[in-house]
Amino acid sequence: MTWQPINVPQRTIMTPGPVEADPRVLRALATPIVGQFDPSFTHIMNEVMEMLRALFQTKNQWAFPINGTSRAGNEAVLASLIEPGDKVLVPIYGRFGHLLVEIAQRYGAEVIELHCEWGEVFEPQLVIDAIQLHEPKIVACVHGETSTGRMQPLQEIGMYCREKGVFFVVDAVASIGGVDVRVDEWCIDACIGGTQKCLSVPAGMAPITFNERVAEVITARKKVEQGIATADDLCDVTTFTPIATNYFDLAMLMDYWSPRRLNHHTESTSMLYALREGVRLALEETLPVRFARHAYHAQALQQGLRAMGLELFGEETHALTCVTCIQIPEGVNGDRVRQFLLTHFGVEIASSFGPLHGKIWRIGTMGYSCRKENVLAVLSALEATLIQHNVRVVRGEAIQATLAFYMATEYATQ
Amino acid sequence: MTWQPINVPQRTIMTPGPVEADPRVLRALATPIVGQFDPSFTHIMNEVMEMLRALFQTKNQWAFPINGTSRAGNEAVLASLIEPGDKVLVPIYGRFGHLLVEIAQRYGAEVIELHCEWGEVFEPQLVIDAIQLHEPKIVACVHGETSTGRMQPLQEIGMYCREKGVFFVVDAVASIGGVDVRVDEWCIDACIGGTQKCLSVPAGMAPITFNERVAEVITARKKVEQGIATADDLCDVTTFTPIATNYFDLAMLMDYWSPRRLNHHTESTSMLYALREGVRLALEETLPVRFARHAYHAQALQQGLRAMGLELFGEETHALTCVTCIQIPEGVNGDRVRQFLLTHFGVEIASSFGPLHGKIWRIGTMGYSCRKENVLAVLSALEATLIQHNVRVVRGEAIQATLAFYMATEYATQ
Repeated sequence: MTWQPINVPQRTIMTPGPVEADPRVLRALATPIVGQFDPSFTHIMNEVMEMLRALFQTKNQWAFPINGTSRAGNEAVLASLIEPGDKVLVPIYGRFGHLLVEIAQRYGAEVIELHCEWGEVFEPQLVIDAIQLHEPKIVACVHGETSTGRMQPLQEIGMYCREKGVFFVVDAVASIGGVDVRVDEWCIDACIGGTQKCLSVPAGMAPITFNERVAEVITARKKVEQGIATADDLCDVTTFTPIATNYFDLAMLMDYWSPRRLNHHTESTSMLYALREGVRLALEETLPVRFARHAYHAQALQQGLRAMGLELFGEETHALTCVTCIQIPEGVNGDRVRQFLLTHFGVEIASSFGPLHGKIWRIGTMGYSCRKENVLAVLSALEATLIQHNVRVVRGEAIQATLAFYMATEYATQ
Repeated sequence: MTWQPINVPQRTIMTPGPVEADPRVLRALATPIVGQFDPSFTHIMNEVMEMLRALFQTKNQWAFPINGTSRAGNEAVLASLIEPGDKVLVPIYGRFGHLLVEIAQRYGAEVIELHCEWGEVFEPQLVIDAIQLHEPKIVACVHGETSTGRMQPLQEIGMYCREKGVFFVVDAVASIGGVDVRVDEWCIDACIGGTQKCLSVPAGMAPITFNERVAEVITARKKVEQGIATADDLCDVTTFTPIATNYFDLAMLMDYWSPRRLNHHTESTSMLYALREGVRLALEETLPVRFARHAYHAQALQQGLRAMGLELFGEETHALTCVTCIQIPEGVNGDRVRQFLLTHFGVEIASSFGPLHGKIWRIGTMGYSCRKENVLAVLSALEATLIQHNVRVVRGEAIQATLAFYMATEYATQ
C-alpha cells in the first residue's frame, strides 16, 4: 500500500480548543532538531522557564512544561502532591472539575466534591466554608471551565488556603494566555496551563508552575530511578511514599530542568520550540493587550449572536471571556448544525459534555483564532446554516451588529 | 524583556537519539491544525493505526501513539497491565532494563530482576528458566539497549511466554524502524516504539501496539472518567482494580482510538502529523531496505573507527545495528572530547550511563542521521579531535577505510 503525504483541509476553528495554531508557531515547529543536552537546547529550556514565569505572573523557580497534553500537567501536579489517603477538595462547576476528581482518586485521595449548577460558579465563601469543615490537604479547582464557559474567582479562596496551609492547585488550561491568571497574587501553589487554547500552540505540552511549598513536599518524596541514580540519590523508600508514577514524577523533572540536567525523558524538541514561540508571541503582544483582545472579540461575537436572535448560556458576571456558550434553539439537532458548518463552510464550533450535550454550542475566541475575520466568518456561516435547518433567525443582522461594534471601537482601526 | 524568534545551530547528530528529523517530517510538522474530531483528523488517526501495524509487523487491532515521549509508552503499557502484587520478570542488560523495573515497581509490581554484564545479552534459555522458576504474570524486556548497543534475541522467550500464558512486553524504542521487530512472529503481547531514534521524528510520541490478550486484561479494568461517562459505563470499582493513572489509561485510550471516539486528551495534532510522515517514509523505503541501510552504515562507520585504531565495545554477535559503542582510550576525558566535537565541528555523539559513563562513547546511525555524509563527518571530526587531545590514532586512515567500504559495495552507487 502506498501512502500519500499528509493533506488536510484549511479550517476556521472556533472551538474552545484545539484552535488554529499561529503560523509563526507552525514555522517554529519546522526548526531542525538539536540534541537534548546541546547547550543551545538547554539554553532554550532555560528561556522557556523564564518566559513561562512571565506568562504565569509568578516568581516561582519552577515553571516548565510536561511533555504531554494538558491533562498530563494536571496529573503530574496531583500525582506528585497526593499521597494515598490525602483529602482533596474539588469544587465542580463543569466537566473538568470531574477530571480533577478522577485524577485525584486514581492517586488514592479521599475526594470531597462541591457541586453547583453547570453554568454558574461558586461563591468563594462557600468553598472557604467547605475548607474549614473538611480541612483538606489540597484544594484543586478549574479556573476557566470550557464546558460551561464560566470562570471561578480564585483570589479569596487562594488567600484562605495560604493562611491555613492548604495547597491550592489550579487548572488554568483554558484561561492561560487569554485571561488574567495571577499565580502569585492569587496565592496559587501549583498552576497548570494548556497550549492548544489561548496560546495557539498545538496540543502536546502542558506548562506548569509550582512554588517552594509544593517543591518541598515533592522533594521529600524523591526517588531517583535505577540506572541513573548516584550514591547521593540513595534513599530508604520504607520511610516515605515515593511518587506513584515515573513519567510524571516532578522530583525527577526538577532535576532535569535544573543545572543537574539528570536525564529523564527526552524533551520533545519540536513541541518545546512551538511552546517557546507561542509564549513569546503572547509576551510580545503583552498580557494586558492580549487579555483585552480576547474579551473584545468575544463581545463582538456576542453582539452578532444576539442580533441573530440567539440566546446565550450561563451567568454573565463569571463568563470565561474566550468561550461563548449558546443555547441550542428548541428542536434543533446541535450536532447536525455543527456538521453542516464544517462540511459547507469549513467552520468548526463545539458541542458540550454531559448534561449540556445537545443543549449548548460553544464558540471559542482563542489565540490566533480570536480575530475579526474569524468572528465574522462564524456568524455568517452560522446564520446561513440555521436558516437551512429551519430555525427562525433575524436575517442579515448578525454581521451588521458585529461590524457596527467593531467599527465603533478603537480596535476596528487596527 | 524582548525575546527573539528561535535560532538554533545546524548540527550533525550522531547520538542514539534524538537524531536529526527528516526534513519531510519537519515540513509535516508545519501543517495547519484541524480539530480533533474533524473527520479529516480522525481519518489521519485511522491511517496512523494502519501504518503502525505495518511498522510493528502485526495484525493487532490496537496500534496507536501515546502522547508523550518513549517512556510514556512503557508506562502506559505497564500501568494498564500491572495490578499491585503482580510478578514482573525483567532481564536487565543496560540502563533501560532498570527503567522497566522502576516503572513496574511504581505500579506495585513484585519485580524479579535478572542481570548480566552490560555489553552482553541473555541466553534465551536463562530467561526461560527464570520464567519457569518464578512464574511471573509479565516478562518485560528491552529489545535494543542503546546504553550498551546490544540487542536481545526475543523469539524463543516470546514463544515460551505464549505457551505458558505469560504476557511478553517489549521495549523496542531504539530498534523500531531501524532493526527488525516482528511483534506477531515473536509472540510479543505489547510492544513500545520510539520516534526520535530510527524513525527520525522528534521526541514526543510513543507508538505502541498490543494484542487481544492484553486488551482483555485492560478492558476488565475499565472505568470511564466522571464528566463523560454514560449509563453504559457504570461499574462497581469495588470488584476490580482500576488502572492507577488517568493519562495512561489504555482502556480509555482504546475508546478514543475507536469509532466511539470518547474524548480523553486532545490528540497532539502536529506530532501525529510528524509521526504519520515518519512512518510513511519508513514504509515507502520498505522495512527490509531500511533495516539493511541501518546495518550498512553502522558497518561503514566501524570500518573507519577500527582503521583509526579505536576499539569497539560489546559482544559483536548481539550488536544493535544502529548504535556503535567505542571504548574511550585510557586517560581520555570522554566528555571533553564530546564537547570539542560539538563546539568545533557541530557534531554530537553520546556518552553512556551508570557503569559505562566515561568508559564508552556511543555513535548512533539512526533514521535520517544514518547516511554517508554523516558517517564521514563524524569520523573526520573524531580523528581531528582525538589528535587535539593527544590520543595516538592512525592518521588519515579512517575515512579512507570507510570510503573504500562504501565504494566497494552496491550502496555506494546510490
